Amino acid sequence: MIYVTRKESFCAAHRLFIEDLSLEENFNIFGKCSNFNWHGHNYVLYVTVKGDVDSKTGFLINLKNLSVLIKTTIVNELDHSNLNLDVPFLKNIIPTSENLTIAIWDRLCPLILNLGIRLHSIKIIETENNIVEYFG
Amino acid sequence: MIYVTRKESFCAAHRLFIEDLSLEENFNIFGKCSNFNWHGHNYVLYVTVKGDVDSKTGFLINLKNLSVLIKTTIVNELDHSNLNLDVPFLKNIIPTSENLTIAIWDRLCPLILNLGIRLHSIKIIETENNIVEYFG
Amino acid sequence: MIYVTRKESFCAAHRLFIEDLSLEENFNIFGKCSNFNWHGHNYVLYVTVKGDVDSKTGFLINLKNLSVLIKTTIVNELDHSNLNLDVPFLKNIIPTSENLTIAIWDRLCPLILNLGIRLHSIKIIETENNIVEYFG
Amino acid sequence: MIYVTRKESFCAAHRLFIEDLSLEENFNIFGKCSNFNWHGHNYVLYVTVKGDVDSKTGFLINLKNLSVLIKTTIVNELDHSNLNLDVPFLKNIIPTSENLTIAIWDRLCPLILNLGIRLHSIKIIETENNIVEYFG
Amino acid sequence: MIYVTRKESFCAAHRLFIEDLSLEENFNIFGKCSNFNWHGHNYVLYVTVKGDVDSKTGFLINLKNLSVLIKTTIVNELDHSNLNLDVPFLKNIIPTSENLTIAIWDRLCPLILNLGIRLHSIKIIETENNIVEYFG
Amino acid sequence: MIYVTRKESFCAAHRLFIEDLSLEENFNIFGKCSNFNWHGHNYVLYVTVKGDVDSKTGFLINLKNLSVLIKTTIVNELDHSNLNLDVPFLKNIIPTSENLTIAIWDRLCPLILNLGIRLHSIKIIETENNIVEYFG
Repeated sequence: MIYVTRKESFCAAHRLFIEDLSLEENFNIFGKCSNFNWHGHNYVLYVTVKGDVDSKTGFLINLKNLSVLIKTTIVNELDHSNLNLDVPFLKNIIPTSENLTIAIWDRLCPLILNLGIRLHSIKIIETENNIVEYFG
Repeated sequence: MIYVTRKESFCAAHRLFIEDLSLEENFNIFGKCSNFNWHGHNYVLYVTVKGDVDSKTGFLINLKNLSVLIKTTIVNELDHSNLNLDVPFLKNIIPTSENLTIAIWDRLCPLILNLGIRLHSIKIIETENNIVEYFG
Repeated sequence: MIYVTRKESFCAAHRLFIEDLSLEENFNIFGKCSNFNWHGHNYVLYVTVKGDVDSKTGFLINLKNLSVLIKTTIVNELDHSNLNLDVPFLKNIIPTSENLTIAIWDRLCPLILNLGIRLHSIKIIETENNIVEYFG
Repeated sequence: MIYVTRKESFCAAHRLFIEDLSLEENFNIFGKCSNFNWHGHNYVLYVTVKGDVDSKTGFLINLKNLSVLIKTTIVNELDHSNLNLDVPFLKNIIPTSENLTIAIWDRLCPLILNLGIRLHSIKIIETENNIVEYFG
Repeated sequence: MIYVTRKESFCAAHRLFIEDLSLEENFNIFGKCSNFNWHGHNYVLYVTVKGDVDSKTGFLINLKNLSVLIKTTIVNELDHSNLNLDVPFLKNIIPTSENLTIAIWDRLCPLILNLGIRLHSIKIIETENNIVEYFG
Repeated sequence: MIYVTRKESFCAAHRLFIEDLSLEENFNIFGKCSNFNWHGHNYVLYVTVKGDVDSKTGFLINLKNLSVLIKTTIVNELDHSNLNLDVPFLKNIIPTSENLTIAIWDRLCPLILNLGIRLHSIKIIETENNIVEYFG
């Protein structure tokens, strides 16, 4: 079994807050990530898939096809968006990196199965210091 | 003369648009950077100062002091902010990286002169592909 | 289960040698890493923790809290130190990256359990070419 | 058990194509990677080995020795080569990154066992966006 | 005056050799860069332009437009090519990074003047250790 | 005129202090950089040279030769050393990055002139946040 990873990226705004809580309570939980007028990041996304190498082509999968799939279903919806307001598949989700990786996994997993391979992990680098990875 | 650079960073939301123009006109100029609900970046800021090395200490300047100056006057105001709404020294400025470097230069230049050295350049990396530098 | 990684860094001096051996014997084992007057590195430390996402906050853990824990118990003791001479929790340990990862694991593991989550791995990048990871 | 990784690199030309197929059929499978006159990459290679820390030296293995092994058996054959034409151990293999990781694994695995430790993974970064890893 | 840099990249094969010289003479000058069957690199290209900020838009230039210009006139011709054989604007040029930066400068300079701004420098990173920059 | 840069690196220990001052006075000037038992860094060194491209070879200079010169005269003396104690050409110099760049410039400048080209700058990255450059 071979593991192949494609890196993509998107720039987005977000804000971490729980609607039922006051500004002060949100600040106690989320700190400046709950600032009222949003902030943002250059997110880096690593999608790792796995399976057997095709003995004819030497590919697990043509990475161009994987890249197109990730761009059309994930990156085009997230890039230059507001993660709290603009993204249907993130609706009612607090856009922490944890929740982002899970939502992206749930969205990509069946589509990658359709390609005849399996999704192994979704990794998001929110800043160079903060990284989240999800294996389903 | 020696050149010393300090790297700092901040995460912020912004949107590029001209108030007098329609959404469509703004999109023609700024593309998805004018999306209505903001987006954001991990900005990297390089501040380069210059002057003579102090023969006693071997320093141009203690970089800790320079870092504190940049943090208190620039980073603390920009980090986890909305560059269009939250930052007094960016008021009425379209927050392009070009305008950001100039605004940061104007703010830091006299303060760095007070330290007995000179500001050489302000560089901002908005994404790994887009970089702006200003030398006054 | 979600995996969250925090990156920290520290600058330190060290020397690799076995006290009972001669300079020449040490050089045969450790090469220039056994040079008498120390050398040093910018160490990069990755701490990965794992557990379930809190459905209320969308966090595994507030990374600020994890960062404070790593800084107060690890980084503040190692940064700008001599790993052979200055660090109580490294006493009598040859400060290879292998031993460093294990010592940091042993120190952090119970403290991270106290936060209600689990330590997954400690990774140290000594130079861009040499990396060590420990999973307990 | 500890995991130690050594990073090496090599620059090489290659071309992805299946001899029995026409130029057009190859282009449909491999895109511009099948261009007739070759192209090339700066490949980054990560070799991860695992085992127990030697209680006397604090090393899993002297990384200098591992580096020499990788250089003499892998890097010296691949660096500044044409992966399709010049490398005996890649003969009759389409030099995709998938096949490269497997061929390097097969070549290194017994040699690393001879050192008393075990090979854990071979990772190749072909471009910053395309990464392949193999665990045997 | 403001300086704006766009980063692009391309993967290509090349070989350094002088036609009139023997293999041995070429090897004495170019080392393994003259290997007969080509080798290749992931080239990183930085194009820096300069001029005045447009007071209406806050842009020196829309970087998307600059990127399209670089891609259509430079990257599309170089990416996945053989620099010795495939590129009309490199004909009869030994494809060292020095010659590459000059050839790209000569090709881009008038086109960038047409945009109402000026080309400042062309920088090529052939490997992380070898960098060439040209200012006209 | 073309500018060519070679990147090298070295790992070293150092300590910043003025012999005539007390520990406390040194701490007030240098902070933890004056800690008694040394600390260290992975230093990155960029040497930029300039001149005309050789029309026959397309090189400013064979970078292999430049690398050998830098390694034999600079890196081999600094790597795995104590900058305060071990390096003859740093004797009686407080090993700040400012003083390091100047000492390396003074040492390399005449040797590079002997190669028929000119030294343009010496840049040292002490940590990713602290960078010093000297142009003579």
